Amino acid sequence: MIDLRSDTVTKPSAAMRQAMANAEVGDDVLDGDPTVLRLERRVAELLGKERGLFFPTGTMANQAALWLLGERGTEVYCHEDSHIVNWEIAGTAGLIGLQPRLVGGAPVLEPEALREKLRPASPHAPRASLVCAENTHNGAGGMVTPLAKLQAIRAVADAAGLPLHLDGARLWNAAVATGTSLAAFAACAETVMVSFSKGLGAPVGAVLVGSATVMAKAWETRKRFGGGMRQSGILAAAALHGLEHNLPRLHEDHRRAAALAAVLATIADLRVVPPDTNIVMVDLPERHRAADVVARAKAAGVAISAWNASRIRVVLHGDIDDRAAADATARLQEVLR
Amino acid sequence: MIDLRSDTVTKPSAAMRQAMANAEVGDDVLDGDPTVLRLERRVAELLGKERGLFFPTGTMANQAALWLLGERGTEVYCHEDSHIVNWEIAGTAGLIGLQPRLVGGAPVLEPEALREKLRPASPHAPRASLVCAENTHNGAGGMVTPLAKLQAIRAVADAAGLPLHLDGARLWNAAVATGTSLAAFAACAETVMVSFSKGLGAPVGAVLVGSATVMAKAWETRKRFGGGMRQSGILAAAALHGLEHNLPRLHEDHRRAAALAAVLATIADLRVVPPDTNIVMVDLPERHRAADVVARAKAAGVAISAWNASRIRVVLHGDIDDRAAADATARLQEVLR
Amino acid sequence: MIDLRSDTVTKPSAAMRQAMANAEVGDDVLDGDPTVLRLERRVAELLGKERGLFFPTGTMANQAALWLLGERGTEVYCHEDSHIVNWEIAGTAGLIGLQPRLVGGAPVLEPEALREKLRPASPHAPRASLVCAENTHNGAGGMVTPLAKLQAIRAVADAAGLPLHLDGARLWNAAVATGTSLAAFAACAETVMVSFSKGLGAPVGAVLVGSATVMAKAWETRKRFGGGMRQSGILAAAALHGLEHNLPRLHEDHRRAAALAAVLATIADLRVVPPDTNIVMVDLPERHRAADVVARAKAAGVAISAWNASRIRVVLHGDIDDRAAADATARLQEVLR
Amino acid sequence: MIDLRSDTVTKPSAAMRQAMANAEVGDDVLDGDPTVLRLERRVAELLGKERGLFFPTGTMANQAALWLLGERGTEVYCHEDSHIVNWEIAGTAGLIGLQPRLVGGAPVLEPEALREKLRPASPHAPRASLVCAENTHNGAGGMVTPLAKLQAIRAVADAAGLPLHLDGARLWNAAVATGTSLAAFAACAETVMVSFSKGLGAPVGAVLVGSATVMAKAWETRKRFGGGMRQSGILAAAALHGLEHNLPRLHEDHRRAAALAAVLATIADLRVVPPDTNIVMVDLPERHRAADVVARAKAAGVAISAWNASRIRVVLHGDIDDRAAADATARLQEVLR
Repeated sequence: MIDLRSDTVTKPSAAMRQAMANAEVGDDVLDGDPTVLRLERRVAELLGKERGLFFPTGTMANQAALWLLGERGTEVYCHEDSHIVNWEIAGTAGLIGLQPRLVGGAPVLEPEALREKLRPASPHAPRASLVCAENTHNGAGGMVTPLAKLQAIRAVADAAGLPLHLDGARLWNAAVATGTSLAAFAACAETVMVSFSKGLGAPVGAVLVGSATVMAKAWETRKRFGGGMRQSGILAAAALHGLEHNLPRLHEDHRRAAALAAVLATIADLRVVPPDTNIVMVDLPERHRAADVVARAKAAGVAISAWNASRIRVVLHGDIDDRAAADATARLQEVLR
Repeated sequence: MIDLRSDTVTKPSAAMRQAMANAEVGDDVLDGDPTVLRLERRVAELLGKERGLFFPTGTMANQAALWLLGERGTEVYCHEDSHIVNWEIAGTAGLIGLQPRLVGGAPVLEPEALREKLRPASPHAPRASLVCAENTHNGAGGMVTPLAKLQAIRAVADAAGLPLHLDGARLWNAAVATGTSLAAFAACAETVMVSFSKGLGAPVGAVLVGSATVMAKAWETRKRFGGGMRQSGILAAAALHGLEHNLPRLHEDHRRAAALAAVLATIADLRVVPPDTNIVMVDLPERHRAADVVARAKAAGVAISAWNASRIRVVLHGDIDDRAAADATARLQEVLR
Repeated sequence: MIDLRSDTVTKPSAAMRQAMANAEVGDDVLDGDPTVLRLERRVAELLGKERGLFFPTGTMANQAALWLLGERGTEVYCHEDSHIVNWEIAGTAGLIGLQPRLVGGAPVLEPEALREKLRPASPHAPRASLVCAENTHNGAGGMVTPLAKLQAIRAVADAAGLPLHLDGARLWNAAVATGTSLAAFAACAETVMVSFSKGLGAPVGAVLVGSATVMAKAWETRKRFGGGMRQSGILAAAALHGLEHNLPRLHEDHRRAAALAAVLATIADLRVVPPDTNIVMVDLPERHRAADVVARAKAAGVAISAWNASRIRVVLHGDIDDRAAADATARLQEVLR
Repeated sequence: MIDLRSDTVTKPSAAMRQAMANAEVGDDVLDGDPTVLRLERRVAELLGKERGLFFPTGTMANQAALWLLGERGTEVYCHEDSHIVNWEIAGTAGLIGLQPRLVGGAPVLEPEALREKLRPASPHAPRASLVCAENTHNGAGGMVTPLAKLQAIRAVADAAGLPLHLDGARLWNAAVATGTSLAAFAACAETVMVSFSKGLGAPVGAVLVGSATVMAKAWETRKRFGGGMRQSGILAAAALHGLEHNLPRLHEDHRRAAALAAVLATIADLRVVPPDTNIVMVDLPERHRAADVVARAKAAGVAISAWNASRIRVVLHGDIDDRAAADATARLQEVLR
């Protein structure tokens, strides 16, 4: 089975497993695990922020950012397809107490759409306390928000007096696809979350970065959520390995996604969203239902997922080399014809 | 100043004040205030439910219903212009922990739009626990959801296994406008909130009704929110007076709203939403900004409100008789011409 | 039936009812009701604070203070018998998200006991964000915390960098009993809640006072809790009436409580807590169970309450004159002998 | 440095690291990681429950149990020294919305003390929804609650209609110390949390077990908290290794703790709590302050911790063999003499 459901399915390579097995560790709750500390410093440096903190998941790092930057009983502005609204089990409201105010009208958050959605100041309406952007945007098929657009979003947030959190689970892909530095993207936001369990191929983990001021309560917040792990250097070692070995090869996932998309785009009636990065979204014609396509692809040895009733999602990642990508492309072509 | 900003501005009449002054009272937290108990029974009876509970505000009664019927960390489906999302200070998320999932596409909640918005079952996405409807719909200018449509909404909720709360702050107006009984509307929902401080002219208060089972924890929930008042029979007496004396005259507010709307509709370029009940929404042409119109109306002795940048809102109520309505209409005609 | 269960059972007098019937009112959510504004200014002035805000209940005003001063996910220090822990339906944790850290060892909060209970700073333990005192202390039988002790509590809070909220539901009684001004007590706290539905005899309402800075979000917080009422001047008029007419006679309640306590103290085996104000707590000997005593008192025409299995609570208030107090005393003497 | 601060400081052995490096993994969020599933089944079986779920930390597993069994806005009964109150950063109130009601009077939760603390039913007081026990009890120096006592606690909870959660972070030690089976202990509770990062020596992780009914929403709850990890089989492999290789040797930690305690007990003025398991609590005489002793022990090459101002805590664990234990004992003897 060629598994193209998500870039989260990547399994640690032998080399990454070795790095984990060799990791120097300590009790991260008591003293700070040395490998975790190294990862936190490395990521903070890469993103140009003062401090980083390691989390078991990107969801917890996102929710921690909402806790740190947002104010319970107010609104967070975000895109209607954002991860914090659709894939974090309503923790945004249920744990943090923030009411999402959704911005739509385009596949990703647009500065002008955000500006129009801002509520006029009124004692009778909810206040806002936060804007959340996502780059690349998972719900839009790994679409990139280029730096200029992210800066414009930041300007809108600034004008409204609102901080910005960047869900950068796949910010690596945005940086690779555009040549923009991670730090340049990160400079637009108070806090940025980056994940290691997608394209970087680590089994577990994410880091939240921000200024020392913003992050002052992050450690406490993580512990309250039950994210304070002990010898987590084992996990951090995998993340460091991913940074060193997999970040440089993300462009290959993008190249393979583009190739797969180009082939599928030749099939009549399919609408293939041209991929910015490693995710290919395909809108199906009436004759196909996504669930059926997923089932037939599975029968043909390719695991993909149904994004909604008429859209399928195909994700390239480090466990898929050129041969596997070509093979999967051919089988999907067969299935979709 | 003729105040048409809202039907909440009504001041208790001399007769209502007398009823309050004469009210038999008790400590409602200890024993149940006799007048409050009478009101609760009366409203439960009118709406065909087993139990009623008096609240200081409709907002608290709505939030209590969300607490009782909803499940923290899940979603509540409601219209994008609903009161619980736009005018309850994000308590839906901030106090109750429910994430609103907004249904749009029409001025009020439509059964088909609701059905389409339901998320497919997925362990990765938020579950829903509740649907909330609003009738009349304040954000749509007091628009009525007729019984058949409310029943269809209920059927969609039933099919999804979701209870329904009805924000019926102005359900009185819906019943009067359609001839449908309050109980018929209420039969579509697990809980219904009705307010006394709008068209019924009482100074303060709302009642939440539901089955004995659903309401079993309502008293406790109200107390936790700080809604357990003592000799609240004073307020309940006003509500009972409003039921007796103002409910029968609500049709006059509707008649005056229709007349005012008809006059304004003759002005070139204005788009007047034909009022179902007592609220007139007017969309302004480019040459008018709502804030300017509000200011000029005020200068002309008529207080109205800006719903948004290009829409004004004019509300008829019990303190406005035919003469005042005609007077206000003439002045607004002048302002808007 | 002579009702000595609580000073909340007082019914508005004819004069108070008249004041309510005559009250000038407005829509307090839209413009500020003139009588409510007058009450808020009057109470702020009496307590020496910049701003006051009217609430439907003392519970809501207390919870709002916890919301405004406290930080979710931290601890509030308070006495183990405090109202916010025992009689507010766990809203302190359930709505505000504060974990009470209880101080005991004496009938009321003692500065030294508070100091000893402070957790040493540790990243592993909950932080504190707030101290809450209560004066008079309901759970201790209306016991007064004298100014010097409250100042010492404030000094402990200051040393720990914590703000102080004062639950002053019966601060009127503390001021009357000691001759200390309300403002002197209030100067020890960031926020103070005072209630009108106890000794002041109003049917409904409380006011929270504080500095303009602290109160900046109080209006919004009240609305989120569903405490934004419309023509609430009706209720504020009763509170103003109570301030003018019942505050000056609170000393009579204290005198009658002392007299009743003195008589009961002559009964063998009873332990009567000498009342500081209007509440008499009586610890029963083995031969009496509180529930039985309450039942027998009721049969004898006196309503009292069981504080716990071996303690009864008798409360003097404005509806009890000398004759009724003497009558009740004689009947209780009979019951308890 | 001989590190006796906690059994959380254990570092994975070479064999455990190898087991992790060899672990079969999958995407636990998508399909269930095979090693995680194996661990969950194994632990459920050991504890005699239908289902187990792997969590990144015991804190998250405890908080998830509070979410699943408790009801926001009510009280959880627990010992005053319990982990959920003192070491989980007030998440019990701040995230779950439960108000702790503390039971004291003895080093661990006693059934009779619990029974006496139960509030009589009253509409005015907080309801309870849950009891939480902890075995072994960390705050009492790893003290065991024997099966009969835990059954008596369960009986009190049953009589009050309350479910029981067992924080069994070190239930392994209780079972080893008493010979009582894990399943016998677990049969007293609806949910049980066991940790792998203490005596079992794994770097990260805990499992929550319960009936299929109780656990039905556990997966969703974990994801909401941000505990849904991907190739977490790496971590589960360590836990399985710990179960196989370290559970059978826990008795050695107990033996070494007893030996160390016996030696320290010979020092004049020290009060050594006789250890049930692997934790030694020592109350210091006036001449010693805990912080000083900790500093001097550190200078002598032994890391211990100050439990409070006059009590130190010494913990034996798998990284301490007989020689290291003897060595540490001698050095501590020197320091404390």
